[in-house]
Amino acid sequence: MGKNQNEFVKEITPQGEDFSQWYTDVIKKADMVDYAPVKGCMVIKPYGYRIWELIQAAFDKRFKETGHQNAYFPIFIPESFFCKEAEHVEGFAPEVAWVTHGGGEGLPERLAVRPTSETMVCAMYAKWIQSWRDLPVLINQWCNVVRWEKATRPFLRTTEFLWQEGHTAHATAEEAEEETRRMLDVYAECVEGTLAIPVLRGQKTEREKFAGAVRTYCIEALMRDGRALQAGTSHNLGQHFAKVFNITYLDKNDQLQYVWQTSWGVSTRLIGALIMVHGDDRGLVLPPKVAPLQVVIVPIGPAGKREAVLARARQLHQELQAICRVHLDDREEYTPGWKFNDWEMRGVPLRLEIGPRDMEKNQVLLVRRDSGEKCAVAQDDLAKTVQDFLAEIQLLLFERARRFREDNTHQVADKEEFDRVMENERGFILAAHCGEDSCELHIKEQTGATIRCLPFTAEPVSGRCVYCDRPAQQWAYFARAY
Amino acid sequence: MGKNQNEFVKEITPQGEDFSQWYTDVIKKADMVDYAPVKGCMVIKPYGYRIWELIQAAFDKRFKETGHQNAYFPIFIPESFFCKEAEHVEGFAPEVAWVTHGGGEGLPERLAVRPTSETMVCAMYAKWIQSWRDLPVLINQWCNVVRWEKATRPFLRTTEFLWQEGHTAHATAEEAEEETRRMLDVYAECVEGTLAIPVLRGQKTEREKFAGAVRTYCIEALMRDGRALQAGTSHNLGQHFAKVFNITYLDKNDQLQYVWQTSWGVSTRLIGALIMVHGDDRGLVLPPKVAPLQVVIVPIGPAGKREAVLARARQLHQELQAICRVHLDDREEYTPGWKFNDWEMRGVPLRLEIGPRDMEKNQVLLVRRDSGEKCAVAQDDLAKTVQDFLAEIQLLLFERARRFREDNTHQVADKEEFDRVMENERGFILAAHCGEDSCELHIKEQTGATIRCLPFTAEPVSGRCVYCDRPAQQWAYFARAY
Repeated sequence: MGKNQNEFVKEITPQGEDFSQWYTDVIKKADMVDYAPVKGCMVIKPYGYRIWELIQAAFDKRFKETGHQNAYFPIFIPESFFCKEAEHVEGFAPEVAWVTHGGGEGLPERLAVRPTSETMVCAMYAKWIQSWRDLPVLINQWCNVVRWEKATRPFLRTTEFLWQEGHTAHATAEEAEEETRRMLDVYAECVEGTLAIPVLRGQKTEREKFAGAVRTYCIEALMRDGRALQAGTSHNLGQHFAKVFNITYLDKNDQLQYVWQTSWGVSTRLIGALIMVHGDDRGLVLPPKVAPLQVVIVPIGPAGKREAVLARARQLHQELQAICRVHLDDREEYTPGWKFNDWEMRGVPLRLEIGPRDMEKNQVLLVRRDSGEKCAVAQDDLAKTVQDFLAEIQLLLFERARRFREDNTHQVADKEEFDRVMENERGFILAAHCGEDSCELHIKEQTGATIRCLPFTAEPVSGRCVYCDRPAQQWAYFARAY
Repeated sequence: MGKNQNEFVKEITPQGEDFSQWYTDVIKKADMVDYAPVKGCMVIKPYGYRIWELIQAAFDKRFKETGHQNAYFPIFIPESFFCKEAEHVEGFAPEVAWVTHGGGEGLPERLAVRPTSETMVCAMYAKWIQSWRDLPVLINQWCNVVRWEKATRPFLRTTEFLWQEGHTAHATAEEAEEETRRMLDVYAECVEGTLAIPVLRGQKTEREKFAGAVRTYCIEALMRDGRALQAGTSHNLGQHFAKVFNITYLDKNDQLQYVWQTSWGVSTRLIGALIMVHGDDRGLVLPPKVAPLQVVIVPIGPAGKREAVLARARQLHQELQAICRVHLDDREEYTPGWKFNDWEMRGVPLRLEIGPRDMEKNQVLLVRRDSGEKCAVAQDDLAKTVQDFLAEIQLLLFERARRFREDNTHQVADKEEFDRVMENERGFILAAHCGEDSCELHIKEQTGATIRCLPFTAEPVSGRCVYCDRPAQQWAYFARAY
């Protein structure tokens, strides 16, 4: 990253040949992102940013429906605030960018460019919260954050990225736990329902939890190369921050109590997941709900018939605008074939072709990006037909990804099988684990796999740890991860 | 700023007594904003942020309708990029915050926290633009920016603020000029139509133009204390940036040409304008289109009748939800009178009261925030009635602000009158001016007034400069400004 990689990508490297290169080819060719001339930073181009807007809209709607309000906290956090919670600063300090000069002068205290806003939010909550009447506080913020990363990759891991961070304060431990789980469910629902990405829900181990949290829950998705990607996290912060920031309230009995807190976030990383879950060797495949364009109309007009075809295409375009995001590609300088490839590469769910023969038959040809299937359909009631197709594609993409994940989830009983799966097939391994940090670390060193989550719904565990001789304590999903 | 001013503001200082204190009281009491524990930074609280979301939605819609797409550029700009355009760096360098350390190490080059993104955008446009086919490029970004300010005030001037910045590139000078003017008109239309704030359109003088622009156009609004506020600017950048960033394209004759550029922005400052244009001694007055709550229902249920009234209030609430942002205030711990004051202070356009007598008469009482007027209206067809009221309030607020501006705009012929107006009445002065920078500066030193803009539509000017003996060259609007 940081090199000028703007040269036109002529072909997309097949996934099977080099998945990582495939990813780089696709994000460049589909015009989603570019490398910025700042170490580890990306420019999100309009096509990529539009996807983010659609993702934001879906999540924001659910946040509001679940009682949250948006707000905005400063990007700069004084070092003294940032350092108050010991675990938190230990986790984040190595990744912080520091502002040391402003307005032509050296600053008396360094300012952290927020890597996450718990400390700033808590400083404000300590002022805002006085009484049980002030609780719960349910606030979310959409913003940029900065984490100094060594190895970066657009959308997946960049120095600056866009995200939302929810921060809530509650009167009781139970309410905070309930909120933490509720928001995990909201995440799962949005990621599955809107991005068509199936996710596993579970709890992070101590090793993988958020720096400063009591417990971290997460949703985990499986990419087409068999690696997992953490798609969202929801943290129960307990009273860790409340105690160091002194966030207290008078309860109904006039007793001073510390609040209980949560925080939760998803980021532009979700766009990376979207690409790697649905994409294929011809490029991007976008679920209709987050596709900047859901339908592209390509008129096919040979000499003499061009005007008539184009006129009808314009009518259809207008008709479809009422029900979907549709674009009429009437450029004369490109052939239909070139356009087909171009829009396929950009992942548009549905292509609508119309030529002189279609005109005669009062039909159009719909071509699905997900399956390549071509269907001649009547021009009458086209809006309804297109809506049905889009709904079906949305469902099918989810179903296909779910099946892929199932096919690539292995329940494993011993170390040999564990090693073999991680070496050859990848995917998720579900196995019994001893719960020891040292074993978890050993597995990571041996196989590259980490515990992605401890599932909520697993059956009682018995027997021995899949990797060591200790008694099993928990079920765990393992995978190599992004 | 920076002090803890969270203590409950019991009364709002009257505007006539101390306008500046009135402003501070209102933003605190209405729960819009708080001072952050970082010099010059603000926390935008949910009520204030919701207004920003509504403003964003109105502008974003118009940007998209005029062909613009959103994107995201990095917050960090390497010092070497930032310094390329001489005028630009001279204008902005004194206000820059610098990142010098990241990931635990000193950086080889300082990074500016963007005060504005022209230089970063231009670095990317130089890569993206090759041919006339790539033009125009019409991109907008919603983001945070940082300008190190000495004297700060929430919404009006803060170290960090939220804004949008449009950045476009064109094949010809004419197209760039057309875009610059188009976006000024979009701004005027949104500010007048959505925020109900009348604006003057015009051009900035050399002294007041954007650092690096050929020409800056602006919209200027008049606050209720007689001071002007720049509500948005649109810059024709000419080829200034194109030449230093080498942004070129091959035209249709295969000749290499520099592009012509524009940039334009509005910010959270607009919220400050909203407060100071419409607010009164009882607090905030919000135009319905940007009011987080357009209607608040206050049930008035004496003992014994409470449940029946509340039940009907709930029905009305549900009915109105389909057509407006409505809230039912059913809190038992506050009296109706307390609620009236509270919602008035928060600027809710319409209050709906319902009590036992209203129930009997099948009516409700609507109380307008703008005029205090109370109208008993039938419960039948209430949605339609409420919609009409909201539309009327929106128009009336604009009309009232327009009249205020007209009453406070003085066409002035000589220095004595100029001085007198600026000393006593304030408001806008329209006068003939010599066009000399030294005279403009002299006026500022003598009266505190600056040239807000040179109007587009003024009649031919003749005679002498209002403030010096030189021949007049232009009409100008003067005012003291925020």
